[in-house]
Amino acid sequence: MKRSALVKNIKQKKSFLCIGLDSDIEKIPTHLLKEEDPVFAFNKAIIDATHDLAVAYKPNLAFYESRGIAGWHSLKKTMDYLRQFQESVFSIADAKRGDIGNTSKQYARSFFEGGDAGLDFDSVTVAPYMGIDSVSPFLAFENKWVILLALTSNEGAFDFQFIKNEESGLYLFEEVLRKSSTWGSKDNMMYVVGATKAEMLGTIRKHIPDHFLLVPGVGAQGGSLQAVADYGMNDDCGLLVNSSRGIIFASKEKDFAEKARENALEVQEQMAAMLTEKGII
Amino acid sequence: MKRSALVKNIKQKKSFLCIGLDSDIEKIPTHLLKEEDPVFAFNKAIIDATHDLAVAYKPNLAFYESRGIAGWHSLKKTMDYLRQFQESVFSIADAKRGDIGNTSKQYARSFFEGGDAGLDFDSVTVAPYMGIDSVSPFLAFENKWVILLALTSNEGAFDFQFIKNEESGLYLFEEVLRKSSTWGSKDNMMYVVGATKAEMLGTIRKHIPDHFLLVPGVGAQGGSLQAVADYGMNDDCGLLVNSSRGIIFASKEKDFAEKARENALEVQEQMAAMLTEKGII
Repeated sequence: MKRSALVKNIKQKKSFLCIGLDSDIEKIPTHLLKEEDPVFAFNKAIIDATHDLAVAYKPNLAFYESRGIAGWHSLKKTMDYLRQFQESVFSIADAKRGDIGNTSKQYARSFFEGGDAGLDFDSVTVAPYMGIDSVSPFLAFENKWVILLALTSNEGAFDFQFIKNEESGLYLFEEVLRKSSTWGSKDNMMYVVGATKAEMLGTIRKHIPDHFLLVPGVGAQGGSLQAVADYGMNDDCGLLVNSSRGIIFASKEKDFAEKARENALEVQEQMAAMLTEKGII
Repeated sequence: MKRSALVKNIKQKKSFLCIGLDSDIEKIPTHLLKEEDPVFAFNKAIIDATHDLAVAYKPNLAFYESRGIAGWHSLKKTMDYLRQFQESVFSIADAKRGDIGNTSKQYARSFFEGGDAGLDFDSVTVAPYMGIDSVSPFLAFENKWVILLALTSNEGAFDFQFIKNEESGLYLFEEVLRKSSTWGSKDNMMYVVGATKAEMLGTIRKHIPDHFLLVPGVGAQGGSLQAVADYGMNDDCGLLVNSSRGIIFASKEKDFAEKARENALEVQEQMAAMLTEKGII
C-alpha cells in the first residue's frame, strides 16, 4: 500500500486504529474450537466486525508459529481473507525479524511475496540491532514497508535503548531513528514507538517529523491514547495505534465479535475527535 | 542438551563444527527436485554424511519460512530426523527472535516444545534490542539455550553495535554481554560473535570468559578459524564455529553429500589440531 492510500483511509474511516491479531488459541471463545480452523474463524469474525473502524491489522507471528504448521495455515488463510480489503486495510506482520543480507532477503520474500508460499503483507516489523544490511532487503520491495523497532513499550526497553552515545549525546533509540531514516523514506519506513513512553514522542518527532509511527501499548500495557495523539500526531496523522487484547478478547462468549466492535468503535470515536481537533478531517 | 554433554561431544568428535542448514531450494542439487520434499532430502543426506564430524546443526529459519507451509514441513521433518542424534548433536534454530514477554513466551514454545506443533530445538538465536523480558521467557525452559546476538559478522554491525556508552565507556555489544550475562548463566546462554571481527574476541572474553560463543562468518564471510581459536577458545573449548555454504553447497551434483563430508572433514581436522594444541583433548 502507498502512503497516500493509507492517509486516505485514515481520513475516510476517521481512525488510525490497528487491531492486533494476537489470536492465542487458548484465549479465543471455546465454542470456536469445534471449527475446522478455530483461529481463522476467530480472525474472520473479528475482521468482519471491525474492518470499517480499523485501518490496519497486525497478526503477531508468535501466536501462529507456536502452533506449528497448523498455525501457518491459520495465518495464510487470514491473509488470503484480508486480500478483499487490500485497498482499505494495511497489513502488518509483527515478526521482529532481522538478519544478514541474504537471510533478510528470504524473510522479505516470506512476508511480501504473494502466491502459494508468500503472505503478501504490506509491512513487517524489523529489529535494528544488525544494522543496514538487515533492513535494506525489505526496502527493495515496491509499496512494502519496514516498521523498525525504535523505542519499545516493555520493561526491557530500558536495558539498551536508553544507552547514551558518547559521541553524539543521543540515546540508542535516537541513533536508530537518525541513521535508519536515511536508509529508506517516509514512504517505506515506519517506527515502533511504545505508548508507555508517550512523553518521548516529542523527542522522536524531532528526528522523524514525517514518518508514520506504529504505537503499541495503549490499553493492556497502560499507555494513553490522548498523550500519543498530543505528542505524536503530524499533519498526515502519522500514527497507527495498536490495540490487541482490549479489542479481540473483549468477550470470550458467542458475542465476542460484537463486543470487539463495541470496543473498537469506542476507540475510533476518540480517534475521530483527535483527528478533528488537529484539523486533519 | 546440558553443557556437560556438549563439551563431551566436542571432545569425542574432536570438533566444534556447527553446520548451517541454509538449505535454499534454489541452490540444492537439481536432481533432488524430483523428491517429495527436496529440502528434507537434502538435509537428511547432509546430516547422514556429516553427523560424526559436526557437534551442531543450525537451520536458518528464513530459508524455510520463505517457502511458506511447505518450508515448515521440511523444517519439522528435519528436526524429527535429527532426534535420533539428540545425544550427540546440538540443534540451533537460527531465528533471531525477540519480542515483549508474552510474545517471546510463544516463540519459546514454537522452538522448544516437542509434540505435533513444536520443533524441539536445543537453542534459538535471539536479538537483544528489547532487553530482559524479551529474553527471559526462553530461559525458563530446562536444558534449552538462548544464543543472544552480541557482535555480528555483517557490514551493518558497525551501525549500532559499536556505539560507545557515555557512562561506562563500553560499546553497545559489550553492554549486551555484561548485562545479559546476569539474566542466565553459562549453562543456558551463548552469544553470537562474528568471525570477521575475531580480534574483538579478546575483549569479549574479558566480559564472558566461560560462555560458549556461536561464531558465524568463517569461510564465505571471510573469517579465519585460527584467529577465532586463538582469541576465543576457553578451557571447555567454548566455541561453536558455523559453516554453511562452504559445506552444504560444496557441490551441486550427485556427489554433494560426499563433497560436504570432505569439506567438513577438512575443517574438523583443523579443529582437532587446535583442541590438541590447547590441551582440551
